[in-house]
Amino acid sequence: MSLLTNQYTLPNGDIDILSMGEVLLDLISVEEDVSLTDAISFNRHFGGSAANVAINCSRLGEKAALVSRIGRDYFGEYIAATLRKENIILEGLQFDENRRTPVIFVNKSKDTPDWLAYRGADKFLQENDIIYNLIDRCKIFHLTTFILSSKPARDTVIKYLEYALSKGKIITYDPCFRASLWPEGNKGKKIVSEIINKVHFIKPSLDDAFHLFGHDTPLNYIKKYLKLGAKLVILTMGGDGAMAADGKQLIKIPPFPTKVIDVTGAGDSFWAGFISGILAGFPLKRAVKFGSGVAAFKISGVGAFSPVPDKATIIETYKI
Amino acid sequence: MSLLTNQYTLPNGDIDILSMGEVLLDLISVEEDVSLTDAISFNRHFGGSAANVAINCSRLGEKAALVSRIGRDYFGEYIAATLRKENIILEGLQFDENRRTPVIFVNKSKDTPDWLAYRGADKFLQENDIIYNLIDRCKIFHLTTFILSSKPARDTVIKYLEYALSKGKIITYDPCFRASLWPEGNKGKKIVSEIINKVHFIKPSLDDAFHLFGHDTPLNYIKKYLKLGAKLVILTMGGDGAMAADGKQLIKIPPFPTKVIDVTGAGDSFWAGFISGILAGFPLKRAVKFGSGVAAFKISGVGAFSPVPDKATIIETYKI
Repeated sequence: MSLLTNQYTLPNGDIDILSMGEVLLDLISVEEDVSLTDAISFNRHFGGSAANVAINCSRLGEKAALVSRIGRDYFGEYIAATLRKENIILEGLQFDENRRTPVIFVNKSKDTPDWLAYRGADKFLQENDIIYNLIDRCKIFHLTTFILSSKPARDTVIKYLEYALSKGKIITYDPCFRASLWPEGNKGKKIVSEIINKVHFIKPSLDDAFHLFGHDTPLNYIKKYLKLGAKLVILTMGGDGAMAADGKQLIKIPPFPTKVIDVTGAGDSFWAGFISGILAGFPLKRAVKFGSGVAAFKISGVGAFSPVPDKATIIETYKI
Repeated sequence: MSLLTNQYTLPNGDIDILSMGEVLLDLISVEEDVSLTDAISFNRHFGGSAANVAINCSRLGEKAALVSRIGRDYFGEYIAATLRKENIILEGLQFDENRRTPVIFVNKSKDTPDWLAYRGADKFLQENDIIYNLIDRCKIFHLTTFILSSKPARDTVIKYLEYALSKGKIITYDPCFRASLWPEGNKGKKIVSEIINKVHFIKPSLDDAFHLFGHDTPLNYIKKYLKLGAKLVILTMGGDGAMAADGKQLIKIPPFPTKVIDVTGAGDSFWAGFISGILAGFPLKRAVKFGSGVAAFKISGVGAFSPVPDKATIIETYKI
């Protein structure tokens, strides 16, 4: 039977979702369509996919924890204050005394933007009982790829992932591989592929698929993910909606009609909606639709994670 | 006889000054008197004391080389282009393929600003023949403290310094120690003190003296530097002018009357003027005055290093 018509049995836990990955500052150029070599003014934005997923889940009504490592510095202070306001469980947020909170410079661009990552504390996420304890307590363990790109954090994160699997947690993984973040470049694909094979759900975008497999069609991308051992792939395709497949069934989810104001953070809100749908006990197909609904709501507003409302509003707005 | 009435005999070389130290981007907050935790907008500025000294010297008419290491990235590209426009000899500028061009976030403030350094390539300046060759060719070897603060660059820089000494080069050293940049914190003072003992000229500011010795009077600061083995100390005191001493004689140089518009980069322009004065064969007292004149000219304009004119203009403006 296809997973897509299934409801997922949730493991026990008082934390709905533990998100493990990056929280950082994006420094986005004020000038548009100017290379980072020439950009002069930058605005600071709260960022990091793992943190945005946690915040969006929290706004949808889930109990969310973030596991990450930042610097004990001015920027880390701002990040921690923001997460606290969003009611994120922060026991697993580590502060590095000597290394910096990561920042990423990005140019505002209609095309694929230039970006330049300044990493620090995030590469040194430590293994400790606090985090094992949080994993014990969670239902869904969500992982992004950024924090896997560099050692020693990579080895630590893989231990946490193995532990979560051994405890029967549901694992959602964002296979957002970018070779330039990996010291070993394209060889990093091997590690991303191994993780895809282990987890329950992946949700690549077309851009993620391109960076892992090169140019191909959406259907071929799905086949390639399944071939790597993915149990369920949700491929998001921007204005073309999404596809979900488990090797037995493939469904297409058209996008909800919406006025597109700002697509920033669409992927992270899709993730949050999907995760929230699983937590609500929706059959997977409905969970995917719920993800799509949250993303639609998100892109109709402006801002990093502001306009995600509670679950009921999404269900009512999009009749999911 | 006092050094101050002396002319300095210059070693041979076709490069007037080789400046070894940092070149980086300052990201200065647009908001004023707001902590870095709360600042939202930043403007990118070319920065780094060693680079500013080289550029100011070049504008005064000297042949200047910069030795530093930056990332082969968008910001490094901008920095290299800026240095090229200023006619700086760049054979000794290294590009790191994997590490970033350093950036420093600073809040615009009337008091001592908050700052947060993101270091990278600069910590990994490499030893190579190109740089030994540049040292052979220079008359004055100028060194800042930023690049000494972290290994492995520190060990490499000390080798270059020893080599420059062995070749009879004149060494000017900026003892701008800040414990927070040093992994060993205040223990870094020992290394700074050892270098003070080796070089020909140091030019601390009151702020530099405070960070090395704690609160004290200007005269006591001078005594303390001399006790460390300094041959000639020039202590710059902002609006109070400067003092210079060699243990036999102490002179006071009142500031030139000038409309103060922006004091950013005053220290680096003082350095350039002083170095340029030595290169012109001025007696040291006149070289110090020349430094003071260039600084006065500088702070009467706005911008990082823009308003330093040629030597003749300074001499004419201030009758030095």
